[in-house]
Amino acid sequence: MDIAKLRAAHPDHWMRAAAIRTLTLDAVAAANSGHSGMPMGMADVATVLFEKHLKFDASAPLWEDRDRFILSAGHGSMLVYSLLYLTGYAQMPLEEIKNFRQMGAKTAGHPENFLLDAVETTTGPLGQGISNAVGFAMAEESLRARFGKKLQDHYTYCIAGDGCLMEGVSHEAIALAGRQKLSKLIVFWDNNNITIDGKVELSDRTDQPMRFKAAGWHVQEIDGHDPEAIDAAITAAKNAGKPSMIACKTHIALGHAQQDTSKGHGALTDADQMKAAKEAYGWTAAPFEIPADIKAQWEAIGSRGREDRAAWEARLDEQSDRRQEEFARTFAGEAPKKLSAVIRALKKQISESAPKVATRKSSEMVLEVINPVLPETIGGSADLTGSNNTLTADMGVFDENNRKGRYVYYGIREHGMAAAMNGMALHGGIRPYGGTFFCFTDYARPAMRLSALMQIPVTYVMTHDSIGLGEDGPTHQPVEHLAICRATPNTLTIRPCDTVETAEAWEIALTSQKTPTVLALTRQGLPTQRKEHKVKNLVAQGGYVLADSDGKRQAILIATGSEVEIAMAAREILQEAGIGTRVVSMPCMELFAEQDLAYRRKVLPAGPVRVGVEAGARAGGWDKLLLGERGREQKQAFVGLDRFGASAPIDELYEKFGITAENVVAQVKALLG
Amino acid sequence: MDIAKLRAAHPDHWMRAAAIRTLTLDAVAAANSGHSGMPMGMADVATVLFEKHLKFDASAPLWEDRDRFILSAGHGSMLVYSLLYLTGYAQMPLEEIKNFRQMGAKTAGHPENFLLDAVETTTGPLGQGISNAVGFAMAEESLRARFGKKLQDHYTYCIAGDGCLMEGVSHEAIALAGRQKLSKLIVFWDNNNITIDGKVELSDRTDQPMRFKAAGWHVQEIDGHDPEAIDAAITAAKNAGKPSMIACKTHIALGHAQQDTSKGHGALTDADQMKAAKEAYGWTAAPFEIPADIKAQWEAIGSRGREDRAAWEARLDEQSDRRQEEFARTFAGEAPKKLSAVIRALKKQISESAPKVATRKSSEMVLEVINPVLPETIGGSADLTGSNNTLTADMGVFDENNRKGRYVYYGIREHGMAAAMNGMALHGGIRPYGGTFFCFTDYARPAMRLSALMQIPVTYVMTHDSIGLGEDGPTHQPVEHLAICRATPNTLTIRPCDTVETAEAWEIALTSQKTPTVLALTRQGLPTQRKEHKVKNLVAQGGYVLADSDGKRQAILIATGSEVEIAMAAREILQEAGIGTRVVSMPCMELFAEQDLAYRRKVLPAGPVRVGVEAGARAGGWDKLLLGERGREQKQAFVGLDRFGASAPIDELYEKFGITAENVVAQVKALLG
Repeated sequence: MDIAKLRAAHPDHWMRAAAIRTLTLDAVAAANSGHSGMPMGMADVATVLFEKHLKFDASAPLWEDRDRFILSAGHGSMLVYSLLYLTGYAQMPLEEIKNFRQMGAKTAGHPENFLLDAVETTTGPLGQGISNAVGFAMAEESLRARFGKKLQDHYTYCIAGDGCLMEGVSHEAIALAGRQKLSKLIVFWDNNNITIDGKVELSDRTDQPMRFKAAGWHVQEIDGHDPEAIDAAITAAKNAGKPSMIACKTHIALGHAQQDTSKGHGALTDADQMKAAKEAYGWTAAPFEIPADIKAQWEAIGSRGREDRAAWEARLDEQSDRRQEEFARTFAGEAPKKLSAVIRALKKQISESAPKVATRKSSEMVLEVINPVLPETIGGSADLTGSNNTLTADMGVFDENNRKGRYVYYGIREHGMAAAMNGMALHGGIRPYGGTFFCFTDYARPAMRLSALMQIPVTYVMTHDSIGLGEDGPTHQPVEHLAICRATPNTLTIRPCDTVETAEAWEIALTSQKTPTVLALTRQGLPTQRKEHKVKNLVAQGGYVLADSDGKRQAILIATGSEVEIAMAAREILQEAGIGTRVVSMPCMELFAEQDLAYRRKVLPAGPVRVGVEAGARAGGWDKLLLGERGREQKQAFVGLDRFGASAPIDELYEKFGITAENVVAQVKALLG
Repeated sequence: MDIAKLRAAHPDHWMRAAAIRTLTLDAVAAANSGHSGMPMGMADVATVLFEKHLKFDASAPLWEDRDRFILSAGHGSMLVYSLLYLTGYAQMPLEEIKNFRQMGAKTAGHPENFLLDAVETTTGPLGQGISNAVGFAMAEESLRARFGKKLQDHYTYCIAGDGCLMEGVSHEAIALAGRQKLSKLIVFWDNNNITIDGKVELSDRTDQPMRFKAAGWHVQEIDGHDPEAIDAAITAAKNAGKPSMIACKTHIALGHAQQDTSKGHGALTDADQMKAAKEAYGWTAAPFEIPADIKAQWEAIGSRGREDRAAWEARLDEQSDRRQEEFARTFAGEAPKKLSAVIRALKKQISESAPKVATRKSSEMVLEVINPVLPETIGGSADLTGSNNTLTADMGVFDENNRKGRYVYYGIREHGMAAAMNGMALHGGIRPYGGTFFCFTDYARPAMRLSALMQIPVTYVMTHDSIGLGEDGPTHQPVEHLAICRATPNTLTIRPCDTVETAEAWEIALTSQKTPTVLALTRQGLPTQRKEHKVKNLVAQGGYVLADSDGKRQAILIATGSEVEIAMAAREILQEAGIGTRVVSMPCMELFAEQDLAYRRKVLPAGPVRVGVEAGARAGGWDKLLLGERGREQKQAFVGLDRFGASAPIDELYEKFGITAENVVAQVKALLG
């Protein structure tokens, strides 16, 4: 690459981009860790994007109608941090750049949305950012349809690398975006032909432009170091009428001795090589120093959107008070006041009518009353709509010609669905939920972990939550999945036992601000356990006494979901045998653990023998409840499943694996000796 | 679809295919559950494939050189079961067909490799079969290079549906196959335009032929009900010189009232509609009855390969005894005798030299001695070769022009890698291992679960196994991942503390026959703990006393991996303070749980206080070891991490989260009161 020629062709642009490159070099060198090459390769694209196209105001990082900029290749975090510092974001003083990757700094190794307002999403695990971007673009379409172009009308830009495009989730995202004709989504592919192991061709020879075209995208191929080509391509992309991919031929670590090598991907810290690179750039300032004229140019870029924003604020002010309030409420992620009222009414009605339904069906009943009062929900399923029961009558289908529709046919794309939901939740103004079989939590797992890490309240509607799904067999029967969800930090795993608990679970999920919720729901019908109406949300306590012992309390049965019915049946037998038995429903272990000691002691007193019942692995939190919480090793047992399931009708499976009232009774009697 | 015309055009073929269709209808109706439409749609393709192309012998389902046939759209299991019954496999009497989806039947809801020899892989979770198929084809290439065309020279055929092609993992698999020019891999796409939610276009408009071409595949598009077109396409695919995709335009539930509908995907049980469909087929036999002439035709197909196999047996007999033995050993998955000798020698040398190295480096040291004596290993990494340390000097790179190479550059495809490894292990003759960061276990999770369910000894080399990876931050720092692996049935999770334990862990992984192994390895250097050479494999006991107390035993510290060093440092401080302290190294909780009570009691006696130390979530099996196993709630504590990590240098992270010897000491002292 002839650096001198690049400099000469666009000298001002060159120095602006060089500011990104040198900040990157300096920060990585100071940290002695990080990834230099990507920001150096994509500095030109980013500079042109920020200078000429991106709608933003550095003084208002949370402006609801800003264009979203997502760095899917999150290891190149110094690209984002440089841009934030240069354009003058208050959260990014130079000190932060100097503290790159240090304890307590906002400049984490990979961009983290919960540390910086201007970081739209947490990236690093490859393929996630581009898949989030699809969700951002969907959110924009939905909110534009709801609030009008005056309030919501922006683009979503994303930079993705070869790693992002090799990851499977990118396929799901790209196909979904193409299907949905998301015309305000623009992806730059950093086509530098380098991965960690070497040249891309070592592992991949995909014709990416053809691949994107096959998915229904508009595609351009440009020189990623030519600012005019970049500008023209972005303009064309904005008018393409479908999602647009701009393949940017770039040189990783441009101008550095490690340019175009896999070493250039990592931390470039050699002092002499850094010096040589800066010389080639024509950069004479000291480390971390940006010459005043260049900083001024960048700050002008940072305030370029100020007028746009003022005009937008004026348009917002023109709206009726009610509309302004609704807009604010929606973006704040606050549930409407009506929510608790409709939940309560449903609970009351259910307690009275006491239907026997599967909790997946209970969930649908809840959604039928919720969705009409929560216009910000966008629901969907990974091609299991009729099984997950996620579609309600009022929603309409989100589609290219019906952006007011609130139901998404995600296709067989659990991972892409979860990542898109993350994007929607991060965008603001949307409360997404989506369903699949609980077992296929596995497919969505990387994005589900990010929901938790990113502190966003996505709701996962996971049905067919045990061997109770029957004949489809062990590939479809979750065993360890409750354990997986419960072991994940900042995740609520709720397994309701009936419709009332399901309603309470949904209330928790929909009022959560910083925690995702996993609802584990049954395929099989369950009787209503909560026949006495209580206004209070009992699931919010995690566990509670569903039925206390008659007479002296000798046993406590703790159960979740479908196994509460079994525990209740066992209680009946035990009581008849004169063994006083309490049943504790434990729909959410995380919330139970948050209760104070006095409450936990009241629910789980020391003394009686304890038997846990759940059609899943004991590793799913049971040791703590049975051995801990004042339990004792000799006085506890677990009735569950520490192996894979089998293909057979449901009743035979429960029988085969001994998850029966009779076995629970036998365990209690054995423990009582 | 004009059934009459199809019947008339190829009457014999028609009736053979109709046998599949009617068996499917009958079995699903009897089970009152299952998926009728897919086998009915693809019966013509399967019939032509089995009749004219597939190299197999129904009397020898395990023949090492058979063509492999994989039903990626596993819900269509009745297609496979019908074919096995019709062609005369001994394991598939008519009784099994009649017991479809019933308890104890081999005809599980989805095909399960561990129930039927002729089922090459367990499918159902979509996208897995086609991704396994890539591994099968790689295994064939590798074994052909090793043993010669005389012994190994077969095709891998796969039927994939829209669901398989929507799943992200299919992208990884297709791109890998294209990159590797796997010319003996042939995929039929069941292009029926139906998913569970409705028409495919509800969620997808991908141009699949263009997509496959972009990935380097040979592509044909045919009428999937025209036997001549099917035959010609397979012939062309075999000679394509690259992986081949045949897009078969089909009608789901062909000839049934539910043809071309999403209802046709599921269980078609309406008696009148079944009757009408059979009439349309010209089928007059009773349910489950196959007219003798048709059965005879199918059985002739089933024995078509008998001569081929006899010729192959003759060729095998011509080989030297040593070569025959090696071929048999390799396919039996038995480790060579030399393995334990080289492991022992390395252990001895390490105990003496006591290096301080990261266990990912230890793993490389082990592989350097193992790979030369285990020619069946195929290693690789998802683009982290230099970080996972999975490549050894002797391996060579597996590539289109070097099929003897044993190292695979999988690219940024953790899921595709895991699924391909499953395929290789299932094929036989290969012992695959592959690496990525432990945190990205998440990406590979669906395939890792299948390794366990399918009972195949794949080895996952998961490095950077804690916050110890440092600055890359929480997106890259595993917390709940040990819990995930430990909660999964039939999975060995081993976290060694030094090079000796790493060598023992590899010995366990490489001699396992039916259980996959996850090795959790550090980025950071660790001292050698096992300085006294022992021939015995101590990791095989799961946990053992690494250092006993001096004086009265008051405390037991239980630790794994990198935290053993911390426990040992804590022990030193405690001993100096006069508190007798035992350190138990617990590299594998699953193996410890398998030890008899006497041994477990010896290692973890009641009495002393216990502190667990692991830089991960307590949910990862610790409650059982601390509260159970004769532990007591008031006498135990855990030093670990029940939240996400952070981006900072390693030492500061351990300090911040209190995973230090000082904190362990403080916990012990607090417990002793």
